[in-house]
This record gives sequence, C-alpha cells and structure tokens, in this order.
Amino acid sequence: MPASPAETTSVTLPEAFEDPVYRAAVVDLLGVISYGEISAFERLADDSKLAPTLEDKLALATMASVELGKVAALHTHLRALGADPFAAMAPFRAAIDEFHRHTAPADWVEGLVKAYVGDGLANDFYREIATYLDPDTGELVLSSLDDDGGHAALVVDRVRSVIAADPAQGGRLALWGRRLMGEALTQAPRGAVDRDALTALLTGGVDRPGLDLAALGRMFTRLTERHQERMGELGPDA
Amino acid sequence: MPASPAETTSVTLPEAFEDPVYRAAVVDLLGVISYGEISAFERLADDSKLAPTLEDKLALATMASVELGKVAALHTHLRALGADPFAAMAPFRAAIDEFHRHTAPADWVEGLVKAYVGDGLANDFYREIATYLDPDTGELVLSSLDDDGGHAALVVDRVRSVIAADPAQGGRLALWGRRLMGEALTQAPRGAVDRDALTALLTGGVDRPGLDLAALGRMFTRLTERHQERMGELGPDA
Repeated sequence: MPASPAETTSVTLPEAFEDPVYRAAVVDLLGVISYGEISAFERLADDSKLAPTLEDKLALATMASVELGKVAALHTHLRALGADPFAAMAPFRAAIDEFHRHTAPADWVEGLVKAYVGDGLANDFYREIATYLDPDTGELVLSSLDDDGGHAALVVDRVRSVIAADPAQGGRLALWGRRLMGEALTQAPRGAVDRDALTALLTGGVDRPGLDLAALGRMFTRLTERHQERMGELGPDA
Repeated sequence: MPASPAETTSVTLPEAFEDPVYRAAVVDLLGVISYGEISAFERLADDSKLAPTLEDKLALATMASVELGKVAALHTHLRALGADPFAAMAPFRAAIDEFHRHTAPADWVEGLVKAYVGDGLANDFYREIATYLDPDTGELVLSSLDDDGGHAALVVDRVRSVIAADPAQGGRLALWGRRLMGEALTQAPRGAVDRDALTALLTGGVDRPGLDLAALGRMFTRLTERHQERMGELGPDA
C-alpha cells in the first residue's frame, strides 16, 4: 500500500533511507517488532485467563493492551516509508508463532516467567539494534520497548512469592528460563537469517556503523548476561 | 479498601450519595460494567485468534484493548466512593462468566455477531440506566460506552460480506442473534435481581426519578427493537 500524499509530504526521510537495503531492513525490523507486539498481546491475554485472582487477571490484561498499543506508532512509521504494515509483518509470523508454540507455559507462573524473560530478552535485542539505526527510527524502536506502568515489577513480585511459598518451584522455573533462552536463540535467528535486509542492517552501511562477527559475539554475551540477571531477580534458584 | 485522603478531598460527592442505598447501587452498577469490560476484553481477545487475516486479528485485538481501557476510569470512580473495585465486581463474575459460557461462538463470524449485538445490547441497557443516575455518574457511564474508532462499522462490514458470499449464513446468524438476545434476557437479570441495590436504583429515590413496571416494560421493548435494528444492519436475513 503506497503512503498517502499527506504522509509523504509531512515526512522528510533521513539520508540513510536513500540506500534501498537500509530502507528494506528498517521495514523488516518494524515489521518483526509489530508482529512481536501483536503476538505478545495474544500470549498475555491467554495467560490472563489462568490468573488466580481478578487483580492478577486485570494486571496481565493491561500488560497485553499496553503491548498492542505500541503497534499503531510502528505502523504509522511503516506507512511513512511507503510500506504496507501487514506485508511487512507477514515474513515473521511463522517463526514467532512457532516460537510460542514451542514455549507454551504449562501454568500461570510459567506464563509470568515467560512474559518477564521473553519480553526482557526481546527488548534487550532491539535496544542493541537501535544503535545501528538512524536517530528517528532508533528513537521509535526504543519508545516501543518502554515498560510502562511497572508491570515487570508486578511479575517479579508474583514469581518471588510463589518461590517463597514453595522453594521447589525455584528449580523448575530456572530450567524453564534456560529453555526459553535456548528456544529464543535457536528459533529467532531462523526467522531473521533468511532475511537478507536484517542481516545487512547488522553489517552496516555508508553512514551507519556495522557489526563484525566479534561484536556480534559480544552482543550475544551481553544478552545472555542480562537474561541471567533477570532470572536472578526472580529468586535465589530461578 | 478505603479511599486515600487525596481522593476523598478532591471529590465532593453529589447529594444523591447521602442515600446509602443509592451509593450501593452505583457501586454495583460500576462494578458490573467494569467486570463486563474485562470480560469483553477476554472474549474479543479470544475471538481475535479465529480471525482469518492479520488485519482482522489486529482490529479485534484493538477492540479488546479499547474495552479494557475503560476499566481504569470506572475503578477510579469506585475508589472515590470509598469502594474496592474488586469487591464491587465480585458479585457479578459468576453471572457474566455463565452468560459467556452459554454463548461461546462456534466460529469467527458468530464471534463478530456476538461482539456487535452483545455490546450493543449492553450499551443500550446502561444508556437507559444512566438517565436514573446523578449527572456525574451518568456521564461516566455514558463515556464508558462510546464506540471508539468505528469498530462496530468494521464488524457490520465483515458480517455483510460473509452473508453476501454465502446467503445461507444469513439464516444461521439470524438464529444466533435471537439466541444471544434470549440468553441475555434470561441470564443477565439472574445476576441483577439478586442485588437489592440495583433494583432500588431502578425504583428511584428522593431526588431521582424511578421506573415503574410499565416504564420497565417499555424499556425492554426499546431494547428489543434496537436489537432487531442491529440484526437488520447485518444483512437481509440476519
């Protein structure tokens, strides 16, 4: 779908977009984040059904709505680039759906842990990528990742009480966290690696820094470390 | 949970609230609407999974988020009345959950029809009730019923195309619409009639008009007529 004249005249695209590979990469990136948010909405809405109390249900449902609320700005930006948001999301649906099928939580607390470490990991990854973007797009990506309303704090609080009440849960949830990380590292690249543009993004361009293999390695190390920190926040054994 | 001092000092309650029966009735009303919105969120989020396209999925998910977004203002008002929102919602959970269990849509288009006629009916009913409230509460109730973003138009459009493509669907959906109305009339009162305060609301008070049996009958006639109109908007046979 081409952008309407009103949209194209009101937006002056940064120089970086003169490179068609860069534009395609940004379209891919905003597409994958958009679908990730829609998918997070679905997952959190589903998890909210398992909530033991109406307070917890409302908290999860609100988290779901917050995720979905981020989609509109991403789609507006995609349209300003002359891209159809639905076409931009399409290539990533199968990989993201597959990831969620492989990591369906068995119960309420597994759902909470997945919401916490899954969103945390995705946020860390997109935050790393944002540094390789033109400033406008980078800011949009960062703003779509904000944790509004301290929902993460609620999740940490709930998971900690579960482990405090039944310490054996700590070990089980630690395994679950490791499995989530493993699935994320094996599934997510499968979707991304097929996409030349996203790969090109990470390798840089005329006016953008790239990421060599050593730097990519350091990035994965940082992502793994942050994941360990998050699991540590959930409890002594988690 | 008592209201915080900041909330009680900033709100001067209208004279109507000096009548404890009226206050209890408003708490009940805002409680039932709040839980209805949370429940609508759950239902729409569930229906969005059946959507044939990602566009439809996003539209339903957005409708779900809009419903949930109305809860915060209702809860703020409940807290200003010194009521705990979760205690206020509790008495209505069973009846509303039961209604949704009895009217689970068999497919995507039944879900759309239920979203359209179910929300329409609930909105009509609360709009009728709003005329028996003090102006502030009445306005809050009306604002929580606004159809933001023309979502109803989207539903009408989708259902019409389904019937246009397969006219036999019209008859099936007409039956479905009748069944929804029947369940709403038999299930909803079961929850409300047990609640003395809501009944007292409809029968009036010192400074508020009441509703005699004849007026109540006329109200049900209006609700039924509006339901017929809505079904008519969906298609020739629906």
